[in-house]
Amino acid sequence: MGLAIIAPNKSTDEIDAWKDVFRELNPDVNLQIYPHIDNKDAVEVVVLWQHPEGILREFPNLRLICSMGSGVDHIMADYVPEHIPITRIVDPRLTFSMTNYVVMGILNFHRQILRYIRDNQSKTWDMSHPEIPISVGVMGVGELGGDVLDKVAGLGFPVVGYGNSPKSNFRHPYYHGNQLQEFLDQVNVLVCLLPLTEKTVGFLNRDLFEKCKKGTYLINVARGKHLIEEDLIPAIREGSLSGALLDVFQKEPLPASHPFWEDERITVTPHIASITNHKAAAPQIMENYNNLMANKPLINQINKNQGY
Amino acid sequence: MGLAIIAPNKSTDEIDAWKDVFRELNPDVNLQIYPHIDNKDAVEVVVLWQHPEGILREFPNLRLICSMGSGVDHIMADYVPEHIPITRIVDPRLTFSMTNYVVMGILNFHRQILRYIRDNQSKTWDMSHPEIPISVGVMGVGELGGDVLDKVAGLGFPVVGYGNSPKSNFRHPYYHGNQLQEFLDQVNVLVCLLPLTEKTVGFLNRDLFEKCKKGTYLINVARGKHLIEEDLIPAIREGSLSGALLDVFQKEPLPASHPFWEDERITVTPHIASITNHKAAAPQIMENYNNLMANKPLINQINKNQGY
Repeated sequence: MGLAIIAPNKSTDEIDAWKDVFRELNPDVNLQIYPHIDNKDAVEVVVLWQHPEGILREFPNLRLICSMGSGVDHIMADYVPEHIPITRIVDPRLTFSMTNYVVMGILNFHRQILRYIRDNQSKTWDMSHPEIPISVGVMGVGELGGDVLDKVAGLGFPVVGYGNSPKSNFRHPYYHGNQLQEFLDQVNVLVCLLPLTEKTVGFLNRDLFEKCKKGTYLINVARGKHLIEEDLIPAIREGSLSGALLDVFQKEPLPASHPFWEDERITVTPHIASITNHKAAAPQIMENYNNLMANKPLINQINKNQGY
Repeated sequence: MGLAIIAPNKSTDEIDAWKDVFRELNPDVNLQIYPHIDNKDAVEVVVLWQHPEGILREFPNLRLICSMGSGVDHIMADYVPEHIPITRIVDPRLTFSMTNYVVMGILNFHRQILRYIRDNQSKTWDMSHPEIPISVGVMGVGELGGDVLDKVAGLGFPVVGYGNSPKSNFRHPYYHGNQLQEFLDQVNVLVCLLPLTEKTVGFLNRDLFEKCKKGTYLINVARGKHLIEEDLIPAIREGSLSGALLDVFQKEPLPASHPFWEDERITVTPHIASITNHKAAAPQIMENYNNLMANKPLINQINKNQGY
C-alpha cells in the first residue's frame, strides 16, 4: 500500500519534515511526493494541502484522503471520489495556539491596547481609554470554537456560541440556524471559527454586520472566504463594527495595495493564528494508514454531508 | 462617629462619587472631605489615598484607617498610630481587571503582536515571528497573583509562584525567600505583583535581572518603587531581559523626557491595569464603619507587621 503527499504550496523543508516523521513511524511505507508520483496505481492514501484541481481522478486505487490541516474545505471544493473517507487533523497544540491568539485579540480590544501603543509613540500619558465591557460570541463551536468559549468564560467574560445545527446540553448558551439575530444581540465581540462550507462562504457580509450591535469587534481566524472583504470597511465606517482582527484573507499574502493595511481599526496578521505542527499531525495520518490496513475504524473522519 | 476622606490627588468628580455611595448607604454619616476638615475631634475613621505626610497625628480620636485601594503601602510609608487597624479593598472586579491586563501582556509577548503591528504599518506580510514558548513566574501570590497563576495555567502555560514566606499546599509550584534563583530558572515571563514593603522596594534591580534566563520579559503591575528604573534598559541591552510591559512608575505621570517612552521594547501604560471602582470599594468601607460601631470584627484588615 502506498501513500502520496500532494501539497505543492508547501516548502521542500516542510515536506521533508513530514516525510521524516512518516518514515520514522513506518520505515516500510511506500512514499511518493507530488509532482514525482510515478506509480499512480500504488497510491491508496493521499495526504493533501491545496492540491491541483482534479488530481484525485488519477488514482484508481484510492482508499483514504487525509487533510494535512484541521480544515477540509480545500478538499471539498474539488472533485472527491464517492465513498472515499476524508480525515482531518485534530491537534491539541493547534487548539492551544488558536485559542490563545483569539484570547489575545479579545483582551487587546477589551483593554484598548492599540490606543495605548499609539500613546507610547507620542509619549502621551492618557488614562482615558477605559476597559470596554465585552460579551463574546463564537460562531462555530467545534473543537476550536468550544475551547475558545471555555477559556474566555474562564477569564470571567460572558460568552455565547452559534452554529448550524441544534445542540442539546451544550455547556455554554448556544443559538443555531435562524436564531442569528438573537445571538448577535448578545455579543459585541464576534469570533468566526466556522468551517468553510457552501453554507458559510461569505457569511460575514453586510447583512450580518447590520444585524450586529453598534461597535461590534470582529475576529476572523477561520478562512478568508468567510468574509466579503469589500463589506468590512463600510461596516466600520457606518459604525456597525468598531474594528477587526483578521488572520485570513481571500488572497494570501494580502496584496500591499489592499485597503485593510491602511485602516488602523483593522489589524492584519499573516495567517499565523494556528499553524499545523507536523510532529502532531503526521502521526495521526500514519495511525489512519495503519487503521486502514488493519480494517479498523478511522480517527478524525469528517462527515462529507456536513462538509466538516 | 465621623468619617473623613483624605485623597488630595483624586479629582472632585471621583470624590463626589465616593461621597454619594457613602451617603446612600448611611445617610446619617458625619462626612468631612480633606482639606475641609473643621472638626478633627469627630474623625474616628479615615479613608485614605496618598494623604499628606503626618496628617494622621491630627486626629486624637482615630479608631480605623481605610485604604481606598488594594494597596496600603501609601499608608505604611508614613506615621501610623499604634494599635489602629488598617483595612484595604478586596474587589473581585479589581482582580478581574488586573488578571486580564496581565494575561493580555503575556499573550502579546508570546505571539509577538508588537512585531505584527509594526508589519501592519509597513504593509509587510511576514510569518517569521513564531510563538515564543513561555513559562510564567508570578512574584507575589496573594489575591491578585494567585488569580493570575490560575488563569494563565488554565490557558495551558506552565506557571510558578514566588513569595516572601513558605506556603504549604499552594495550588501551583511555589518558591520563597532565598529560592529566588530556582524560581527564576524556570520562567521567561516575570510578573511582579508583590506588595510594596521595606523588603520589596527596589526588588526589580540589576542583580535580579542578571539572575534571569536570557530574554526574560518583565511585567510590572505592582508599584513603581519595585523597579530600579535605571537598571531596566541596560538589562535589555545586555540581553538578560527582552523587554517589558510597565503600568507603574517611580513618578507618575511618567515624564515625557523619560527614556522608557523611546524604547520600543518597553510598553508603557498609564497605571490603568486595575482601577479601584468606588461602587465596589465604598460599601466595604461602610461595612467596616458599621462593624466598628457594632464592635464586630473588621473585614479585609491587613497585618501591620507584614505590611500587607
